[in-house]
Amino acid sequence: MKDVSVGICGLGTVGGGTFNVLTRNAKIIAGRAGCNIRIGRVASRTPREDIDMGGIPFSTDIFDVINDPDIDVVVELIGGYEAARELVLAAIKNGKHVVTANKALIAVHGNEIFEAAEKANVIVAYEAGVAGGIPVIKSVREGMAANRIDWIAGIINGTGNYILTEMRAGREFAEVLKEAQDLGYAEADPTFDVEGIDAAHKLTILASAGFGVPLQFERAYTEGISQITPYDIAHAELLGYRIKHLGIARRREDGIELRVHPTLVPRSHLIAQVDGVLNAVLVDGDAVGQTMYYGPGAGDEATASAVIADIVDVARTVSSGSSQRVPYLGFDPSALEDLGVLPMEDIQSAYYLRITAMDHPGVLAKVASILSEHGINIESIMQKESELKDGRIPVIILTHTVQERQVNRAIEELEALTDIDGQVVRIRAENFN
Amino acid sequence: MKDVSVGICGLGTVGGGTFNVLTRNAKIIAGRAGCNIRIGRVASRTPREDIDMGGIPFSTDIFDVINDPDIDVVVELIGGYEAARELVLAAIKNGKHVVTANKALIAVHGNEIFEAAEKANVIVAYEAGVAGGIPVIKSVREGMAANRIDWIAGIINGTGNYILTEMRAGREFAEVLKEAQDLGYAEADPTFDVEGIDAAHKLTILASAGFGVPLQFERAYTEGISQITPYDIAHAELLGYRIKHLGIARRREDGIELRVHPTLVPRSHLIAQVDGVLNAVLVDGDAVGQTMYYGPGAGDEATASAVIADIVDVARTVSSGSSQRVPYLGFDPSALEDLGVLPMEDIQSAYYLRITAMDHPGVLAKVASILSEHGINIESIMQKESELKDGRIPVIILTHTVQERQVNRAIEELEALTDIDGQVVRIRAENFN
Ligand SMILES: NC(=O)c1ccc[n+]([C@@H]2O[C@H](COP(=O)([O-])OP(=O)(O)OC[C@H]3O[C@@H](n4cnc5c(N)ncnc54)[C@H](OP(=O)(O)O)[C@@H]3O)[C@@H](O)[C@H]2O)c1
Ligand SMILES: NC(=O)c1ccc[n+]([C@@H]2O[C@H](COP(=O)([O-])OP(=O)(O)OC[C@H]3O[C@@H](n4cnc5c(N)ncnc54)[C@H](OP(=O)(O)O)[C@@H]3O)[C@@H](O)[C@H]2O)c1
Repeated sequence: MKDVSVGICGLGTVGGGTFNVLTRNAKIIAGRAGCNIRIGRVASRTPREDIDMGGIPFSTDIFDVINDPDIDVVVELIGGYEAARELVLAAIKNGKHVVTANKALIAVHGNEIFEAAEKANVIVAYEAGVAGGIPVIKSVREGMAANRIDWIAGIINGTGNYILTEMRAGREFAEVLKEAQDLGYAEADPTFDVEGIDAAHKLTILASAGFGVPLQFERAYTEGISQITPYDIAHAELLGYRIKHLGIARRREDGIELRVHPTLVPRSHLIAQVDGVLNAVLVDGDAVGQTMYYGPGAGDEATASAVIADIVDVARTVSSGSSQRVPYLGFDPSALEDLGVLPMEDIQSAYYLRITAMDHPGVLAKVASILSEHGINIESIMQKESELKDGRIPVIILTHTVQERQVNRAIEELEALTDIDGQVVRIRAENFN
Repeated sequence: MKDVSVGICGLGTVGGGTFNVLTRNAKIIAGRAGCNIRIGRVASRTPREDIDMGGIPFSTDIFDVINDPDIDVVVELIGGYEAARELVLAAIKNGKHVVTANKALIAVHGNEIFEAAEKANVIVAYEAGVAGGIPVIKSVREGMAANRIDWIAGIINGTGNYILTEMRAGREFAEVLKEAQDLGYAEADPTFDVEGIDAAHKLTILASAGFGVPLQFERAYTEGISQITPYDIAHAELLGYRIKHLGIARRREDGIELRVHPTLVPRSHLIAQVDGVLNAVLVDGDAVGQTMYYGPGAGDEATASAVIADIVDVARTVSSGSSQRVPYLGFDPSALEDLGVLPMEDIQSAYYLRITAMDHPGVLAKVASILSEHGINIESIMQKESELKDGRIPVIILTHTVQERQVNRAIEELEALTDIDGQVVRIRAENFN
């Protein structure tokens, strides 16, 4: 039984965790893989004093790893787009298998990378890129293989979920964000996390692996959580809902919905109970129904867990004498469908609307008739006399499922009314049925 | 690309579901498997009028399937021990790969079956046997491959979970069981489900796949839910806990804990929120921490989803030119450890105790001193004057973690007190930390 030699590129959070777990659990991992998995070389910009490298060759040039003939599997943990793309394509050209935790890379350059890998007959694995330590790519590509997957919905950014969880206590977004930054949950520049870009990277990958369509990150819709207020969170709760920052992908005959935005979910649903920095992905298949995968979406060793699961997969496949076993996106390239991402106006959803109405007689009737003209049915409506202030009163409406285009038109008309003050707050809602 | 030909043995609930999903989703499944998966033959005691067999050969003798040279994969869905064992061993002898949903078979005869399969170099897959449609065997054997798995805890019997969920409304066990039988959730003879035998089959398999130890069903401890009362459920809730029928496996230096029993779990933990017939398995690994897998644990197409995932796995492995890729129990047979199952008295747990005390002065002091002599620390204690009846009053105690032996000794002494009426109710509690 031949050893499998791994080259680690990037010795930061995930690289360090991968090094440590591979070393600590070497015996368990060998027992599972059926061969020894040996770290053959490590490269990163700066050496780490806190890790005992035990004589393993270290260089600062990551390209040393892909040029080392001893290395079977290149583990890309440097992050970012361009350098990672170059590194991975060069590794593939050199006939190395690749394991990466880089969702940005796969979401944006995945089609190109998989095509090159297919030609070179090497494996490219990216479990750690989506929901960290949760084996959700494996579950979607292999565990759900019998199913026509209809939709996937996930809490796939821990920072955002932490912030929304804390805001339930009535705290403002900005205050909680600052705290998350102090705790190290959020980056100094939080845009990637709170504006939904990171989640859209992961959702793009999940959707392609689930539906069998090419990666189309550039067409994903993203809406962040910075506009969410404790007021809306509290009123959603009163309606029996919780606000989560969800990535939602839905497969339709005419295309796929691919969208990240704050979403009301029923409080009674398990996914509403996923709090703090934890992640969860809900997958709906026509045979199995709903399954959910829950756990830590980030962290050094949690992410390393997924990186190493991919390495073991490569080792098991290679040492059992075959090459590629599971297609990159779950489906054979010839079976990928050319389904496009739908424009946001075409999606279907329920909606939470908060309208600031002037306290005039007949306002509610006007609002109701505008909604009705646009085919929008009301599920519940809330208005409390006690909230009347400066002649204005909030009206909160939860609609039935309708096309987003209708809602946008209705909102335009509502905002044009002199009886309505300012903008209408609109948050999408999902009932998962 | 060669077709893979599947022979289905047993056309009942799961067999019918497997037939229907394989037929309905043939194109999606072929796209994922990289080859056509064709039903080559079906055998079952009685034909099914409601399924259109479309010319596929049918026989009543299941051995026709394993003797058909066209069949690559034998799918055992007849259930039970002896006939299934014979069928599977004969299939292996004939060089067929085997997929089964039969947890009883694997838990009891798995060691023998895997040994035969190892020799014949064929795959035996059993995902559907554990938690139905949830890909938890895949997650444990592959997704968690980097981890030393420390413990696994699961709600792995839907009938029991349905009954306990309904009992939260104050209903008695017997009444809800009858309802579950009427609804088709529970068998006419509910022993397998409510006494924990079915869960112990699944737990045995999970533990072996997670820890890398041989299957040892005969040493699993089982305790059912028929003694649980609405009173204890309500008082557990008051303490912040919910009673679930859990299978718990824990890896220790000196052996493994393997036990199914009613268990208090913190209401704030996600697994406490898993209600009705649904299943969930919590896995704790040293690298990843806690992950949870949730979904339907039974049902025709939900179970078929897992059966077919296994078939696709076999097809992907075979058509990529290799034989066995993932070892039967997750670890290479040479890496299996000879760890035994520990006696129940050696397990460690927290405990909920309900003591019916006579309303005498000093009773509480006596109880407390007996507990303390046995090294048992009290986390909380509840006694309500309003519950005094016929001179007796219930005292409810939640202990810290302690060895079961200590608790048993303390209970013996408590029951010997003249101040205590009848038996002490003892339910184990887990805090998952
Ligand atoms: N952190 C998580 O919890 C997590 C979870 C899931 C996925 N991921 C993904 O995992 C990847 C790594 O994340 P991370 O958190 O480990 O990042 P990190 O801590 O910043 O580590 C990146 C490492 O790569 C080195 N590096 C970057 N570019 C390099 C280059 N061109 N040449 C040599 N070394 C280079 C960096 O060195 P310097 O420090 O000297 O720049 C650093 O040591 C990213 O794609 C990220 O999205 C992370
Ligand atoms: N049902 C679930 O949701 C579920 C979930 C997970 C796992 N499983 C497992 O899946 C397996 C099948 O369960 P099931 O619910 O599908 O059972 P089922 O509905 O009773 O189906 C079993 C089928 O096999 C046939 N059969 C049994 N012994 C036979 C023999 N010796 N020769 C020919 N035919 C035979 C039966 O025929 P007759 O009806 O004529 O006897 C019946 O059609 C079991 O191991 C079970 O534990 C079931």
